[in-house]
Amino acid sequence: EFSHEQLLDRLGEVAVRIGLNLVPQQQLLITASLDAAPLVRRITEHAYRAGASLVTTFFNDDETTLARYQYASPESFDVANEWLADGIARAYREGAARLAITGGNPTLLKGQNPDYIQRSSKASSKANRPAMEIITQFATNWTIVAAANAIWAQQVFPDLSEEDALKALWQGIFTSSRVDTQDPIATWKNHNKQLHARSSQLNEQRFDALAFKGPGTDITIGLADGHLWAGGAEETKSGIICNPNIPTEEVFTTPHCTRVDGVISSTKPLFHQGSLIDGIQVHFKEGKIIEAHASQGQNVLERILDTDEGSRRIGEVALVPHSSPISQSGILYRNTLFDENASSHIALGQSYTKCLSDTDGQNEDQLLRRGANQSMIHIDWMVGSGQIDVDGIKNGQSYPLMRQGEWV
Amino acid sequence: EFSHEQLLDRLGEVAVRIGLNLVPQQQLLITASLDAAPLVRRITEHAYRAGASLVTTFFNDDETTLARYQYASPESFDVANEWLADGIARAYREGAARLAITGGNPTLLKGQNPDYIQRSSKASSKANRPAMEIITQFATNWTIVAAANAIWAQQVFPDLSEEDALKALWQGIFTSSRVDTQDPIATWKNHNKQLHARSSQLNEQRFDALAFKGPGTDITIGLADGHLWAGGAEETKSGIICNPNIPTEEVFTTPHCTRVDGVISSTKPLFHQGSLIDGIQVHFKEGKIIEAHASQGQNVLERILDTDEGSRRIGEVALVPHSSPISQSGILYRNTLFDENASSHIALGQSYTKCLSDTDGQNEDQLLRRGANQSMIHIDWMVGSGQIDVDGIKNGQSYPLMRQGEWV
Ligand SMILES: [Zn+2]
Ligand SMILES: [Zn+2]
Ligand SMILES: [Zn+2]
Ligand SMILES: [Zn+2]
Repeated sequence: EFSHEQLLDRLGEVAVRIGLNLVPQQQLLITASLDAAPLVRRITEHAYRAGASLVTTFFNDDETTLARYQYASPESFDVANEWLADGIARAYREGAARLAITGGNPTLLKGQNPDYIQRSSKASSKANRPAMEIITQFATNWTIVAAANAIWAQQVFPDLSEEDALKALWQGIFTSSRVDTQDPIATWKNHNKQLHARSSQLNEQRFDALAFKGPGTDITIGLADGHLWAGGAEETKSGIICNPNIPTEEVFTTPHCTRVDGVISSTKPLFHQGSLIDGIQVHFKEGKIIEAHASQGQNVLERILDTDEGSRRIGEVALVPHSSPISQSGILYRNTLFDENASSHIALGQSYTKCLSDTDGQNEDQLLRRGANQSMIHIDWMVGSGQIDVDGIKNGQSYPLMRQGEWV
Repeated sequence: EFSHEQLLDRLGEVAVRIGLNLVPQQQLLITASLDAAPLVRRITEHAYRAGASLVTTFFNDDETTLARYQYASPESFDVANEWLADGIARAYREGAARLAITGGNPTLLKGQNPDYIQRSSKASSKANRPAMEIITQFATNWTIVAAANAIWAQQVFPDLSEEDALKALWQGIFTSSRVDTQDPIATWKNHNKQLHARSSQLNEQRFDALAFKGPGTDITIGLADGHLWAGGAEETKSGIICNPNIPTEEVFTTPHCTRVDGVISSTKPLFHQGSLIDGIQVHFKEGKIIEAHASQGQNVLERILDTDEGSRRIGEVALVPHSSPISQSGILYRNTLFDENASSHIALGQSYTKCLSDTDGQNEDQLLRRGANQSMIHIDWMVGSGQIDVDGIKNGQSYPLMRQGEWV
């Protein structure tokens, strides 16, 4: 009943008012692909209406990204634009908000030299680390929303025409972002309440660990000392309540990076920087991945695991019921923002300080000893399904949390 | 005989090889409007082929620029993104090259609040000053090229259909950029030779001043102490030979900012930051504009003149024969890159250190005493035509340089 233009405008409004909760005189940084210009315009208008002093958009272009792989010299792949990454980190320190629009071609880099991919990703992660730390520590308000484009749509809906696929993907984005409801802002406030109720319950229970059991999965995931469950709206250090992901269905916390033991299998393919990794099964011992297999993309997986000290350990564990709207849509979006909200998941790499109590004044070493993993990467990886049981473990006792993918 | 795609690719090649003369492992920064993405892609490919380590493009979007004027709060217009401007200055200091693609809507800001325009322009100029100093001092290699778009084309060719206007504007850009010749690279090398021969002659003559006479113009423009004429390819401090403007037809030098006396009239309209200023006549006394009239855009002109200490004095005088190809095309491009190369011109504001001999170790005060103007602005302003005579003046004697707009 709403036109595409209306829904796009509502997505822009939800992004600014719920996702960012932008405050007057804040600057806003947007990253987007060229295709997303119509959504960037809706967001920019709502940002200025909300009092933004200046909106700066960094557009990226898949074709010029590919041109580097095709024509640049090998040594170029160790170079990143630190001058820009440092400038962006400074903007966040000075109070700017960050909005990322996701939705590029999920397999853009398929067939490109994996050595180049890994080197450029490493150089870029290193350059962007100061900025990403500000984001993961919630020192400023930030959010991620999605825009559809034809190439992504064709990969999600290969049997539809280009036009129908694009329409279907936008519909999926609008519905899961809850902007086709009567009052999206009120709907989001209510949704946040429910996620907060769930994380509060889990925080009261103070489990030592979670146990996941299902096909190809039998694992105990220890939780960090003083872990906190989070979900939905978050409060930044500056006191702004923002919703970092639009959509979001998860409650999540920080696992203990030396207390994970067992085997766990992926339940959905992982699309990472344009490469596909599928059929993952890994063995953890004392928190570290000691064996990793993938039926597809084994090379890429191994390169990810070799990124740094923390890339063989996990920094997040998240619970999503199998009945969540994105899961029920049956759509495999091939994009983390959606797929991680269709399934319980873990993330290789960096943990969120936000998911630990009493961190003020603690340094990296102290956080590490509490179990909070540190790494240049944070890669979410789906392990939930309708066949997974999850227990909470406290003092050696098991308490059922999920059965066959649903909250007990 | 060449297709649009071929000509676009040749423009990309000329931009990289002649305009920038990019050296291996240089980073490249591009600024462009969204419409210019196809040219950005051709330039990016040629840049990587030439050994660029990383190409970063900043796309701007007219619609989001306008959204700020429509929806932002008044105090926002004093804000600029210093964090980005400083990052860009750092990139140049670290050796990155700069390529600007010009060609936005020439009257984008028509009808917007002139107070907002002036404040945002001042904030932006101030933030970008460190970067612009590196550019004007030729500490790194840079160039400007143009890309056509429908809105600009309709303003240049109001009597043509949108499609024909766009085609005609591209044709004008390709022809004046000399990319429809058999061998554009060789053509440019030859063109540079001719401009160098002309500036060498003027450098040997060492005039004290130039006198311009014509309809509404009778003025003596003193030249700075130790002024140097330049034109065509320039050598950067880092020893790279680049062509800062594609196209270029001018030879130019630094006037003496306290020795300009008389009256001078514009011969073409000036399009500045989306506003039109036409029918300008100004009176200079001892280098300073003491009276300024414009038949259109008087407000904008006055605001420009009030920008800072140096904005009422000139920093450039340039000679272009009336028979130059752009002038002969009869097209008024409403864009400085083209219109300044169709006509002799002066520029309000900042001078080029490059156009002075022996500046090493001299500070701003010393340069100012030699006559080199300093300002946050540099606005070229067309004063040549087929009715203008120019004399060189040395020891009180006049030597004819141009008669009726042509070299003697
Ligand atoms: Zn998650
Ligand atoms: Zn995550
Ligand atoms: Zn000039
Ligand atoms: Zn100029």
